Amino acid sequence: MAAGDTTITVIGNLTDDPELRFTPSGAAVAKFRVASTPRFMDRQSNEWKDGEPLFLSCTVWRQAAENVAESLQRGARVIVSGRLKSRTYETREGEKRTVIELEVDEIGPSLRYATAKVQKMSRSSGGGGFGGGGGGGNAGGGFNEDPWASATPAAAGGGGGRSSSSFDDEPPF
Amino acid sequence: MAAGDTTITVIGNLTDDPELRFTPSGAAVAKFRVASTPRFMDRQSNEWKDGEPLFLSCTVWRQAAENVAESLQRGARVIVSGRLKSRTYETREGEKRTVIELEVDEIGPSLRYATAKVQKMSRSSGGGGFGGGGGGGNAGGGFNEDPWASATPAAAGGGGGRSSSSFDDEPPF
Amino acid sequence: MAAGDTTITVIGNLTDDPELRFTPSGAAVAKFRVASTPRFMDRQSNEWKDGEPLFLSCTVWRQAAENVAESLQRGARVIVSGRLKSRTYETREGEKRTVIELEVDEIGPSLRYATAKVQKMSRSSGGGGFGGGGGGGNAGGGFNEDPWASATPAAAGGGGGRSSSSFDDEPPF
Amino acid sequence: MAAGDTTITVIGNLTDDPELRFTPSGAAVAKFRVASTPRFMDRQSNEWKDGEPLFLSCTVWRQAAENVAESLQRGARVIVSGRLKSRTYETREGEKRTVIELEVDEIGPSLRYATAKVQKMSRSSGGGGFGGGGGGGNAGGGFNEDPWASATPAAAGGGGGRSSSSFDDEPPF
Repeated sequence: MAAGDTTITVIGNLTDDPELRFTPSGAAVAKFRVASTPRFMDRQSNEWKDGEPLFLSCTVWRQAAENVAESLQRGARVIVSGRLKSRTYETREGEKRTVIELEVDEIGPSLRYATAKVQKMSRSSGGGGFGGGGGGGNAGGGFNEDPWASATPAAAGGGGGRSSSSFDDEPPF
Repeated sequence: MAAGDTTITVIGNLTDDPELRFTPSGAAVAKFRVASTPRFMDRQSNEWKDGEPLFLSCTVWRQAAENVAESLQRGARVIVSGRLKSRTYETREGEKRTVIELEVDEIGPSLRYATAKVQKMSRSSGGGGFGGGGGGGNAGGGFNEDPWASATPAAAGGGGGRSSSSFDDEPPF
Repeated sequence: MAAGDTTITVIGNLTDDPELRFTPSGAAVAKFRVASTPRFMDRQSNEWKDGEPLFLSCTVWRQAAENVAESLQRGARVIVSGRLKSRTYETREGEKRTVIELEVDEIGPSLRYATAKVQKMSRSSGGGGFGGGGGGGNAGGGFNEDPWASATPAAAGGGGGRSSSSFDDEPPF
Repeated sequence: MAAGDTTITVIGNLTDDPELRFTPSGAAVAKFRVASTPRFMDRQSNEWKDGEPLFLSCTVWRQAAENVAESLQRGARVIVSGRLKSRTYETREGEKRTVIELEVDEIGPSLRYATAKVQKMSRSSGGGGFGGGGGGGNAGGGFNEDPWASATPAAAGGGGGRSSSSFDDEPPF
């Protein structure tokens, strides 16, 4: 349970297919990046033009991670709601860097330009499945479980016979 | 185009199937209600319990309205993002009342407990279709177009050749 | 502690001076209303015009309530962040009505058109003072403490020798 | 005017005094960083503990910039509302990096632990003062005006006789 988080909702498009992995203990986690492009009114042409896109790296856990990997592809327009987090990592050169990322609480495909056939999952399934965790996420703990943090990637586990192939050890993506 | 709107994101469940109508000029509009139930930690039992749900009436326009009506049913868990609006109406007794509602900009089914098969629509289709209107909605005008505001409801129903059965003229629903 | 609340930030102006009261146990609580006025671009005149204001009733508890009462007056432009809540009450005629209100977590005067001399308060002061309660507020309990809910208003207490004069018993304001 | 921006509200503390500068044309701009520290319930000790803080660099323009510089100091608890932006810059080594920052629309000191004496400014004052721009900010243009972007810092101008001393040319701060 956490309080005082900085929550945010982002509307944008996936820049790639989501990448699904599993922690050693079998919890599913998916990563993806969302590009959100604002528009502004150009006074000279009196037309709407695209502004600079905002790119935000997102992480989603457990059953939602599996559902995201199954439901969303590159280009999909999504609504993402979660908590903004700083993450510090070290480059190969030993330099420390801090990036801002989104820990996802809820995500769904936008119905602005698309329809969706929704299929409810039984709650008992799901990879790691350590509880629903209403909005809590893995605050204050799960980090040592992060399959992206380890040099030797987690083998597949849990959810529906998925198997994660080999990953290299580049954390910040 | 509008500025200074009060934006909000609500996560909850539809209390009923969305209701789709069309304005005289042919613009689609759907209404629905979302129940969002917070949870709190009960100190005595040391368990999570449901708090009082928040009910919020929502309106969505144009192609998104048709997509919502086609994709979402009662009970569906959704993420809804939009602008909070006061609306004042008169009761049969001539009393004025003000309600707070949500003018939806984006909505999608939550993937927390469900998967979704997403089908992109061609943008040229769509009922009224007076343009995408990036987040703008029908600010400052469309109200005289509101099919719920008229005593004699628009005909139509279902998707595409719609015919809506009779409605009474009670605006606030 | 609570999860799954619907959070919102409103920027607007106080419609009146905040009203400060104390619960029987001495906790301070202040109420006020914020009017938030969006603007839209009028295509014909090519000028910005005011849209319909959104009015939102707000409640703030404990030390923040006292600080609000001391710092803000009618007309003040504020930033308010909190959780949206439904509240159901009964009219004199026995009719049930539901209103949507804001339970405030943080509020401050906007510096867009004003400066502010900020004076930090010692944390040990404060009326009822049952702890800071990081964002939690009085979720799931404090309601029986609501000084506005009782027909006979609470006498003044706690904080700084303030005395609340008599109030009538109309809850929804 | 802009649409589709990713808006966010952050509650936290200033890590330093705000830094005020002026563009060549005389517009005021202030920069500062906010640290927002979430808390989580530690199951073992059954106590609230501080989580990892989120650090967010913020920019505010025009009269609000001057008001911020005059009203807020290091450590001040603030509510900040604005739009999240990606900014790409080149390091001395010619490497491109992207950071996420906050373009502030509204900011105020939090009244949770402090009182404030608010002083309304006449709107006609203000450094560069190219209009109020309700929420719009300098979307789609002002960037070439950014006093932090130029190697040779802007001389002081406008507002209240402030004079900006020399700055070095390190953009990302």
